[in-house]
Amino acid sequence: MNQTLDQLCINTMRTLSMDAVQAANSGHPGTPMALAPVAFTVFDRFMKFNPANPTWMNRDRFVLSAGHASMLLYSILHITGFDVTLDDIKAFRQIHSKCPGHPEHGHTPGVETTTGPLGQGFATSVGFAMAQKWMASRYNQPGFDLIDYQVFALGGDGCMMEGISSEAASLAGHLGLDNLIWIYDNNKITIEGSTSLAFSEDVATRFIAYGWNVQRVGDANDQEMLSRAIRIAEKEESRPTLIIVDSHIAYGAPTKQDTHGAHGAPLGEEEIKATKIFYGWDPEKKFFVPDEVNEYTQTIAARGKQQESAWNDQFELYKKAFPALAVELELIQSGNLPDGWDAAIPTFEAGINVSGRVASGKVLNAIAANIPFMLGGSADLAPSTLTDLKKETSFEKDHFEGKNIHFGIREHAMGAIANGLAISGLKTYASTFLVFSDYGRGSIRLSALMNLPVTYIFTHDSIGVGEDGPTHQPIEHIASLRAMPNLEVIRPGDANEVAVMWRYIMAMKHTPTALMLSRQDLPVLDRTRYASAEGALKGAYVLADSEGTPDIILIATGSELQLAVAAYEQLQLEGIRARVVSMPNWNLYERQSPEYMESVLPNKVRARVAIEAGSTFGWSKFVGLPGDGVVLGMHTFGASGKVSSLLEEFGLTTEATVKAAKALLQKS
Amino acid sequence: MNQTLDQLCINTMRTLSMDAVQAANSGHPGTPMALAPVAFTVFDRFMKFNPANPTWMNRDRFVLSAGHASMLLYSILHITGFDVTLDDIKAFRQIHSKCPGHPEHGHTPGVETTTGPLGQGFATSVGFAMAQKWMASRYNQPGFDLIDYQVFALGGDGCMMEGISSEAASLAGHLGLDNLIWIYDNNKITIEGSTSLAFSEDVATRFIAYGWNVQRVGDANDQEMLSRAIRIAEKEESRPTLIIVDSHIAYGAPTKQDTHGAHGAPLGEEEIKATKIFYGWDPEKKFFVPDEVNEYTQTIAARGKQQESAWNDQFELYKKAFPALAVELELIQSGNLPDGWDAAIPTFEAGINVSGRVASGKVLNAIAANIPFMLGGSADLAPSTLTDLKKETSFEKDHFEGKNIHFGIREHAMGAIANGLAISGLKTYASTFLVFSDYGRGSIRLSALMNLPVTYIFTHDSIGVGEDGPTHQPIEHIASLRAMPNLEVIRPGDANEVAVMWRYIMAMKHTPTALMLSRQDLPVLDRTRYASAEGALKGAYVLADSEGTPDIILIATGSELQLAVAAYEQLQLEGIRARVVSMPNWNLYERQSPEYMESVLPNKVRARVAIEAGSTFGWSKFVGLPGDGVVLGMHTFGASGKVSSLLEEFGLTTEATVKAAKALLQKS
Repeated sequence: MNQTLDQLCINTMRTLSMDAVQAANSGHPGTPMALAPVAFTVFDRFMKFNPANPTWMNRDRFVLSAGHASMLLYSILHITGFDVTLDDIKAFRQIHSKCPGHPEHGHTPGVETTTGPLGQGFATSVGFAMAQKWMASRYNQPGFDLIDYQVFALGGDGCMMEGISSEAASLAGHLGLDNLIWIYDNNKITIEGSTSLAFSEDVATRFIAYGWNVQRVGDANDQEMLSRAIRIAEKEESRPTLIIVDSHIAYGAPTKQDTHGAHGAPLGEEEIKATKIFYGWDPEKKFFVPDEVNEYTQTIAARGKQQESAWNDQFELYKKAFPALAVELELIQSGNLPDGWDAAIPTFEAGINVSGRVASGKVLNAIAANIPFMLGGSADLAPSTLTDLKKETSFEKDHFEGKNIHFGIREHAMGAIANGLAISGLKTYASTFLVFSDYGRGSIRLSALMNLPVTYIFTHDSIGVGEDGPTHQPIEHIASLRAMPNLEVIRPGDANEVAVMWRYIMAMKHTPTALMLSRQDLPVLDRTRYASAEGALKGAYVLADSEGTPDIILIATGSELQLAVAAYEQLQLEGIRARVVSMPNWNLYERQSPEYMESVLPNKVRARVAIEAGSTFGWSKFVGLPGDGVVLGMHTFGASGKVSSLLEEFGLTTEATVKAAKALLQKS
Repeated sequence: MNQTLDQLCINTMRTLSMDAVQAANSGHPGTPMALAPVAFTVFDRFMKFNPANPTWMNRDRFVLSAGHASMLLYSILHITGFDVTLDDIKAFRQIHSKCPGHPEHGHTPGVETTTGPLGQGFATSVGFAMAQKWMASRYNQPGFDLIDYQVFALGGDGCMMEGISSEAASLAGHLGLDNLIWIYDNNKITIEGSTSLAFSEDVATRFIAYGWNVQRVGDANDQEMLSRAIRIAEKEESRPTLIIVDSHIAYGAPTKQDTHGAHGAPLGEEEIKATKIFYGWDPEKKFFVPDEVNEYTQTIAARGKQQESAWNDQFELYKKAFPALAVELELIQSGNLPDGWDAAIPTFEAGINVSGRVASGKVLNAIAANIPFMLGGSADLAPSTLTDLKKETSFEKDHFEGKNIHFGIREHAMGAIANGLAISGLKTYASTFLVFSDYGRGSIRLSALMNLPVTYIFTHDSIGVGEDGPTHQPIEHIASLRAMPNLEVIRPGDANEVAVMWRYIMAMKHTPTALMLSRQDLPVLDRTRYASAEGALKGAYVLADSEGTPDIILIATGSELQLAVAAYEQLQLEGIRARVVSMPNWNLYERQSPEYMESVLPNKVRARVAIEAGSTFGWSKFVGLPGDGVVLGMHTFGASGKVSSLLEEFGLTTEATVKAAKALLQKS
């Protein structure tokens, strides 16, 4: 074939994408066809990576924010030598394939983050860029530019329209992340038709407003113009760069180019043949990779091996010169914690009152003091969520060594950025009020889907918020987060449970947490009188018990644990055999042995009262069918008022607990 | 006091705000103090409204997007004569007060929409402006400019940072909503401190990029400069206007002005006294309203009465000239539907296969054809969610009569805009894939909190999505929405249940719905063999039964109903007495009489299998403690593959259902 090697590689990507979508009879061919030159140019001319070791710490990152164009990513990974074989591509979108419908981090080598929900990739790339800046400021030393990777992200109109990318772009501009390059595929087509139906803003001007360096490339096929733009971006020293690339969706398809019909459906056999002819390809060959391309894959692989090898040599010297810092880098890479990370975790004396957020703030500070690579922050609520690291400075432009991140009032981007930090191996947390977890839910879900140990610190976790009223009082949030797979939802009942649960959280390497904490003060339970808070490490435990089999079991979490304890004391005084089960973490409890679970909640004891100042939804799992047990919780939204008035109004009191318990016992 | 009337009114608002926050010992005094001149100028000089009838259809709307500054709104409502008394203000933030912590629509006269979660007010104001445009295009007639109201919204840095307002502003600019004026309080202060910590974008340039008319007012105290800006905005004929107002938080407070300490906490008695002296107020007087202000309140009330009265006169003439249109306007105002609105709802023949989304699209079209004031759309997924009204055009700039709204890929703003449309009395719906309900959750919650009949049409409601994979497959979403108070979650089991449930949805005036629909085809059940789909009107019903008491009950929703039916047929053949309960709407079922519920799910029949292709979370309410009944559902995220492979992989098959049923029976 009379084509340059670049053309052969690009057309290979295009034809693999068409063929894979056609074979799957499902998928998005148009954008891979349009952007193959862009992805190829970025990988081939600008990125450093070793396909044999896709997790090499100092690789450049490429994020496909337009995740539906997954074949673009799989095809570039294939021809650059990653472990994505032609057979994998042939199994595109089949169950257990290495090439699922949208790119999945942890599933496919070279996929840096899971994308598909639009805007998430863009926002997560900001987290990658922040991680690079932070690590460079701490670990680079004279003569050792160990951490100097760049971050590329590619997205389309959908990514641009989603609010999350506005949030992320505004913050990236504020921070001056000059290591970040977003490429915007300006193809003027969305699912419903032309972008002119809903999108006519001036994207370039918008990004100038955010403080970005904005460049235009008028033709996606012009590798030289794109290369020039990237070189300028690489020279930029205080701003992130947006490169707007005008493209033709389904480039080369005789009847479908520039139509929304080419967005999310196979082109059809005839259209594919005609397009292959346009590309100078044999129309009858499917999944065809020319020999020249396969040979070039070897060249790229060798180049990458060499790049990493040179870096490894440098790292060996670095280890000798800066052994302590090198150990940290190795911990970051392995996901492990330094010895003694938990040495300073406090215990809290009984008898005082400490809110969940105050206790957590103290524990967090104690932990972070012994984990040098722990950083995080809040969506402009740190004075309320108490997540500032008191001995650390702010992470800001020209002060990237800071550890307190000011995300701004941008919960959705905050979550995605935290995902980027976590993927980069840093220990991180993100905080806001529990009710505003709604704003960040799209990103929380990706933390869970990607098995990332991000800790979401959600304070103000009930109507205990008080006067701020129903817009600020979470009701359904505890339940709605418990329903999410692979998310640990933890609602500790006193300050010592907070401490114990933080220990549990930090030990997890593959699971995000939603840690729910009270705004209001809670009594620190006397653990000489009640069971040790270490019981929380089983998710639920018997905190206080009767002699013999209990008549009734009171189950509670968080701020309501004190109600269960007070009710227990009163019932015991009245000769009713009661048990209190503290249940800060359902998931964890349900992973215990059947014997343990039976010991905590004996099947035969069905008179059970659960108390939680949130939706009652889901509690039937522990109290049984309506009429068997009972749940005291919220059935409506909250109200604005003093906490004491609200608890009375909504029946979340010791008296109501005692009454419910007695009513159950009378019935049975 | 030697002050102009304007000054007296403005300082009254400021001092009432300070005093109310101090008395409540909770709240946000700084912004009301800063922006009292702005709110007063807008209400006094520009808005038409009748405080005696706060729901007058053609009133101008004022939205306080910065809802935490609620005292700004309560104080302006008080001095302009709305039914917000001094006693109400004295009870600020107390339970049952008319002045809760954040403004609540439906609770306080004159509060147009509930705000507090930042950005929601801005986005909802776009819905108000769109409603005005749509209504004007349909109802205004030569000589009758009946609907010509303007929409004002006031927000701060928080509103600007949230992605939802970027989404809404981009759409408002696209649509050229010249009836919309946003005022941006540029006070440079957020909770964590200076906005320079996280926010340095050029807001003016950003809005120019969105296609807005941008103006600046350099001093919040300069009523003339603001008035000039608003007059220019009113003359603008193709763009929304942003007015950037530089303000000083806690203006006049000697030690707290321009500090974040004045954002969310009382000023303290001494500071208040000093500030009152600065305002020329008696430092010892609390909740003081000068006589001149009280008199002026009467003047404003009289003016408003006159404004509405003149409009009413015009409307009487309009009724005679355009009786049919007048009836529509009255229906819009009352929230009622026209006679015969449901006449065209189809029934579906048994024996064919119809997906939930196809069935819903047909029913929606049939309903909308008979409700002239029904409009809605999708976040760029209409070809997939099938929500286009086929006989209607697109709602676009210069074509505001269209009924198909193209929200763009902006789920969060879509929900808030739908709230604005619903508050305006229009019947509306908003659609996307169920998994992306996460992106709009903040707005869905406000639909529920405000009792708005918005219908969220969420298609692609399970792993039945297939090849798009886990990022596009909802798992926890059904449960997490069921947990929300006042939201009807409906998942119909076949096309006729879709039709019946749409009838139910439309009849509700105060409750939003999340209608969950399959992507994949489902059999239309033979209702001569099984019970009528009308049973769905009780939330759950016995679809198929055994003779006598059943040994086992199979409960299912949505696409899994067919599995329950097939399993039932097989069990019956094997002589096992089975019952199938179709349960499209939990809420509705739980509002039935105890007798009815007992007839559907007899307490003594505890061998129960629930089947739903989503998180099993919450189902214990109907199947009891683990070990009693069993739930077949999802415990992990999904996967990319053919639907049939996925159902097999995750055990959601007829065989698995039969097996689970038999296992339960053997155990019992």
